[in-house]
Amino acid sequence: MGPNSFGLLLKMTTFGESHGPGIGLVLDGVPPGLALDLDAIQKELDRRRPGQSDLTTPRNERDRIEVLSGLYDGMTTGAPLTLFVANKDHNPSAYDDIAHLFRPGHADLTMLARYGIRDPRGSGRISGRETLARVAAGAVARQILADLGVEILGAVERIAGVQADLTHWDRLARTDPLAAKALTEKHPTRCPDPGAAEEMAQAIRDASAEGDSVGGVVVVEAVRIPAGLGDPVFGKLDGLLGWAMLSIGGVKGVEIGDGFGITDLRGSQANDPIGPGGLESNHCGGLLGGISTGGPIRIRLAVKPTASIAKPQRTTDDQGNEATIQVEGRHDPCLCPRILPVAEAMAAFVLADAVVRRRATGPDW
Amino acid sequence: MGPNSFGLLLKMTTFGESHGPGIGLVLDGVPPGLALDLDAIQKELDRRRPGQSDLTTPRNERDRIEVLSGLYDGMTTGAPLTLFVANKDHNPSAYDDIAHLFRPGHADLTMLARYGIRDPRGSGRISGRETLARVAAGAVARQILADLGVEILGAVERIAGVQADLTHWDRLARTDPLAAKALTEKHPTRCPDPGAAEEMAQAIRDASAEGDSVGGVVVVEAVRIPAGLGDPVFGKLDGLLGWAMLSIGGVKGVEIGDGFGITDLRGSQANDPIGPGGLESNHCGGLLGGISTGGPIRIRLAVKPTASIAKPQRTTDDQGNEATIQVEGRHDPCLCPRILPVAEAMAAFVLADAVVRRRATGPDW
Amino acid sequence: MGPNSFGLLLKMTTFGESHGPGIGLVLDGVPPGLALDLDAIQKELDRRRPGQSDLTTPRNERDRIEVLSGLYDGMTTGAPLTLFVANKDHNPSAYDDIAHLFRPGHADLTMLARYGIRDPRGSGRISGRETLARVAAGAVARQILADLGVEILGAVERIAGVQADLTHWDRLARTDPLAAKALTEKHPTRCPDPGAAEEMAQAIRDASAEGDSVGGVVVVEAVRIPAGLGDPVFGKLDGLLGWAMLSIGGVKGVEIGDGFGITDLRGSQANDPIGPGGLESNHCGGLLGGISTGGPIRIRLAVKPTASIAKPQRTTDDQGNEATIQVEGRHDPCLCPRILPVAEAMAAFVLADAVVRRRATGPDW
Amino acid sequence: MGPNSFGLLLKMTTFGESHGPGIGLVLDGVPPGLALDLDAIQKELDRRRPGQSDLTTPRNERDRIEVLSGLYDGMTTGAPLTLFVANKDHNPSAYDDIAHLFRPGHADLTMLARYGIRDPRGSGRISGRETLARVAAGAVARQILADLGVEILGAVERIAGVQADLTHWDRLARTDPLAAKALTEKHPTRCPDPGAAEEMAQAIRDASAEGDSVGGVVVVEAVRIPAGLGDPVFGKLDGLLGWAMLSIGGVKGVEIGDGFGITDLRGSQANDPIGPGGLESNHCGGLLGGISTGGPIRIRLAVKPTASIAKPQRTTDDQGNEATIQVEGRHDPCLCPRILPVAEAMAAFVLADAVVRRRATGPDW
Repeated sequence: MGPNSFGLLLKMTTFGESHGPGIGLVLDGVPPGLALDLDAIQKELDRRRPGQSDLTTPRNERDRIEVLSGLYDGMTTGAPLTLFVANKDHNPSAYDDIAHLFRPGHADLTMLARYGIRDPRGSGRISGRETLARVAAGAVARQILADLGVEILGAVERIAGVQADLTHWDRLARTDPLAAKALTEKHPTRCPDPGAAEEMAQAIRDASAEGDSVGGVVVVEAVRIPAGLGDPVFGKLDGLLGWAMLSIGGVKGVEIGDGFGITDLRGSQANDPIGPGGLESNHCGGLLGGISTGGPIRIRLAVKPTASIAKPQRTTDDQGNEATIQVEGRHDPCLCPRILPVAEAMAAFVLADAVVRRRATGPDW
Repeated sequence: MGPNSFGLLLKMTTFGESHGPGIGLVLDGVPPGLALDLDAIQKELDRRRPGQSDLTTPRNERDRIEVLSGLYDGMTTGAPLTLFVANKDHNPSAYDDIAHLFRPGHADLTMLARYGIRDPRGSGRISGRETLARVAAGAVARQILADLGVEILGAVERIAGVQADLTHWDRLARTDPLAAKALTEKHPTRCPDPGAAEEMAQAIRDASAEGDSVGGVVVVEAVRIPAGLGDPVFGKLDGLLGWAMLSIGGVKGVEIGDGFGITDLRGSQANDPIGPGGLESNHCGGLLGGISTGGPIRIRLAVKPTASIAKPQRTTDDQGNEATIQVEGRHDPCLCPRILPVAEAMAAFVLADAVVRRRATGPDW
Repeated sequence: MGPNSFGLLLKMTTFGESHGPGIGLVLDGVPPGLALDLDAIQKELDRRRPGQSDLTTPRNERDRIEVLSGLYDGMTTGAPLTLFVANKDHNPSAYDDIAHLFRPGHADLTMLARYGIRDPRGSGRISGRETLARVAAGAVARQILADLGVEILGAVERIAGVQADLTHWDRLARTDPLAAKALTEKHPTRCPDPGAAEEMAQAIRDASAEGDSVGGVVVVEAVRIPAGLGDPVFGKLDGLLGWAMLSIGGVKGVEIGDGFGITDLRGSQANDPIGPGGLESNHCGGLLGGISTGGPIRIRLAVKPTASIAKPQRTTDDQGNEATIQVEGRHDPCLCPRILPVAEAMAAFVLADAVVRRRATGPDW
Repeated sequence: MGPNSFGLLLKMTTFGESHGPGIGLVLDGVPPGLALDLDAIQKELDRRRPGQSDLTTPRNERDRIEVLSGLYDGMTTGAPLTLFVANKDHNPSAYDDIAHLFRPGHADLTMLARYGIRDPRGSGRISGRETLARVAAGAVARQILADLGVEILGAVERIAGVQADLTHWDRLARTDPLAAKALTEKHPTRCPDPGAAEEMAQAIRDASAEGDSVGGVVVVEAVRIPAGLGDPVFGKLDGLLGWAMLSIGGVKGVEIGDGFGITDLRGSQANDPIGPGGLESNHCGGLLGGISTGGPIRIRLAVKPTASIAKPQRTTDDQGNEATIQVEGRHDPCLCPRILPVAEAMAAFVLADAVVRRRATGPDW
């Protein structure tokens, strides 16, 4: 398996650069006979789109999904499903000034060390625009999961040190996921705690005004999951979710269930008691031995502050000469609101892959 | 790729159950002509072995490594390297009493939901004994990395809420990794801060005396790494390390570099400035865009308290009847000291895989 | 690995249907820093193009290669290389009459049995047009091989029972491969024996006039190969070539070296003696134990007569009702001349994959 | 996917050398809940065993199958199934005389060129003994197929130029596969035409007496197959069977259905008419577009004469010095009777893999 593919059976292979012709993906292993809802895919892309509010980059990328293969009469056929989004607003010359400088916090230096050649136009292959493909894959995955009733949703929990109270949202996520989704979308931060959301927005604006950026924490939940998804060992959903999430640019930490919080508990506190209706608490975050318990799967992600900032930073050029760099351009001062749909998409994909695997080697439901 | 395999090019496939004939692994993609040091592999297995101190389970499993294939005259040949450890001390009847009960915190319930059948002998495939195979694979990986000078080492940072000060160890890890390794091994907790280590040991003994268990945090570092290991997108080392670590039983969180700590920083604080000698700080944990910067790769793992505890817990049997369970037997009251060599092994494997990939598709060093 | 991917390390994933938006492929594992010659790719596509002579279908498909990703400044970057050919001349309504009939010799019946749904427009995913993607992949592979001096070429040996004498061409292939290539291209049949070529052309015209089709045999050779390409067991080049060739629609047999002809020899005749300069004959077709000897790799393919014929044939519709079908349209009366570039491409790809694998796990050349 | 693995979803990874500790395999993707019949596996191994008659090598290898993992109470659990056969009768010193000579027809020269190191004990990894693992995998595959009623069987068709008449056997294979199997096993040549079988046996003995060897042709059939197994493009069963068969040492050609014989037919003759009951003839060998039609899948293999012969042959040593070699030892003078169970096993495996794939991405049967 190459580094551009993800999934054990349902497999996505993504391709494209931020300033090339576009971003796309090939999905292999999609069950045939699925009436694909392209609008639903477009909607997810729109959630990831820049320019949604004054908190995100004003680039107005119209990211229109195109189907290059795999559909007949609106139905999947079992053939590879290829989706493509053309790059419309690419202006590589914007990068001319800094083409030979290594941007701190970016992969410029490491890509050159890895390949001996580097596409300097907006990070090339390692651009955040690559996540477009993941959002599209996740939107297909959601449709595969829909039969089972599974819902994937998320929220921004913390930005710039401002902590939201997610108690209400969490309860809603379990009882009325569509309402919880709507709550998340209500505020441009995607934080469903209105007071915290406003504080976060202000913190983002403050940092932006200073040419700086901020980080935060996002939460993803998968609810109405059947028990028995996932496999032991390297097929554990914890592991696959870890791979999925930590392969998103800017994510530097992942927790399942109580995460680091579980480490101070005793076993008698951390073990979720089992009753006739299933687990009676959810410290494990919906996964035991990497396999779904039937309870909500809960994932937290640490998102670093955006690396591209206007403040001057110390760096070198690709010849090793010292330099000062200011990364101009239209960059999100906080990645959290736009990373959320990407993280949800990856969670959906991990689960849909597990569903297809269970069809192959599991008992009937 | 199946759920029992790990690695993109250098690939391990592990097999075996805790109470079957043994645990093994097939390594495909090992470079030929490597004079394999079997003693070094055995030493790593011994670090993982139970019964090393009064803090770990007294089971005296003599885990002797056997080579089933892939060596000629002590050299790797390019053929699959198969390593096997026979199970000596297995007593499946120890599990008869609880064969039909779901142990809280264990995968009994989920494995049955997944496969419709379950091996009740000590968790079967999903047993912690499976990590034996990973430790062996990691020991081979270390030998592949040795040519480049890479060293992988680790330490226990926190147990039962007792936090160690790793400043000294961290410095040592960078300047004299062998001394840092020795320091880690000095105390049975594998915490290199002697004061904290003693406190941790006491906390473990206290929990154990009450039939309970504790959790903690372990740290793994890879030092003397060349820049340019890893690939973008799903080949990011962050992602592969996330997969590797979160697929170890009991691990519920992973951080790279500053991890969740980075989320409260601003970009101007979080970005590591670049000087002629490379990055001048290491918030990124040695990885930018998933590719090594040349600085130390730093990983933190959240380890939950051992699920098997002697205290009575509420559960059901596999027919849904309520029951009380006490998991007797010889279980580690804290997983951290023994999970450390497993986590180091997985880090070594992820890096060795990246080295082989770079041979295939990178410039010469 | 899904059914739309080929290659162990250098991997192509093809997508597209004959009457969808187009045909494409993603290549993962291409070495970075390759100055990609797009004209050379286009030239190979043109060799596969319909409408090249009165012996092939008059459809004038202008198959223009587009690069969707993976190039910067004309150089490969290590990112996935995505190539795409839009379908220009597609007229799905041409298939309306026979949308519910199973064409004999085609996969209509089997695709429906496999997926429960079927794209009736010109065979959908299973169309011969899919081989476009393979030709493009092979053209890239040739460029990876060019550094080593490897040349891949071929010839039509037999059509409609007319057997060519390839002695001269075979000698030329070894001494002056470019001249041998030119000789092949001289006649629209791609048979380099002029007398036989004329007879073949007449046989094709005769069959075509009767609404019928003919089959034949094509030969592919790889010359100037270094010894030591390939791997044992399932990495044997014989096996991978078998997979490559028998996955081309219409191919029903493959021979390596003497093929079926070797079965009547004795060991003392079939074994190629080894001298200081290498093997002194080539019954083995350039492969021993699946690994290249350094001698020419020689492959023969059995190509069935085109399944689409104008003659009335007995069949059923998808409800099981008996029917008579005449497959109108512009179909090649003989696949051999156009299958040749596809077979060459697959051979090139198998070898380039082996080259990349050897970089990962072999000694330096 | 590495070179030691086969299968797209049901995957076997084989390991071991002819003179190492043993030969084994890991099967991933086996459906859980299968009551594994170990005797049936042993019986298939016994069919492959040397020393079955005076026509095969007198080495009396007692190849006893051992289960290293994946079974609980005789049932598969979804965990990797690992099977192992210890090497009992290995005497590496038998190879001392020729350790530095390249045996003509063997992979000695090519393995050294590939890996820079070579295990000289009886071909090491590339030994025919590796096929043990395939026979075991095939025996498991047969049990996966048994639910569907599928039967895999075969016959030797030609040895040393002696052609059998398989008309009767072919008919029997379709109507009473168990009787056809019994007929094959009746004669040590595994040729079910008694007259031809006797002639073949004599030809083998004659060659053997002269220190020489002979080749032949074997046929494998899969009958009582449901329609709809296989996938388009690289998942075509033709292609996977080609890979499977041409990766068996000594096989230099493969035909599906009419194979090379179809190339002289016209389309109107080669296309199998379709009636209400399915295809009315079987030129296509049970596969259209690589997917099963429901008719018998028919495969022919070209088997070269055994490379190890006692006659003196011209060669060089690994320093390039000319030499004469006589390969003493106990080698089969004809591979056909023992290659037959291997080829059947590979066919069974390809089909079982397709069955598991169809469970994942096909409609219900």
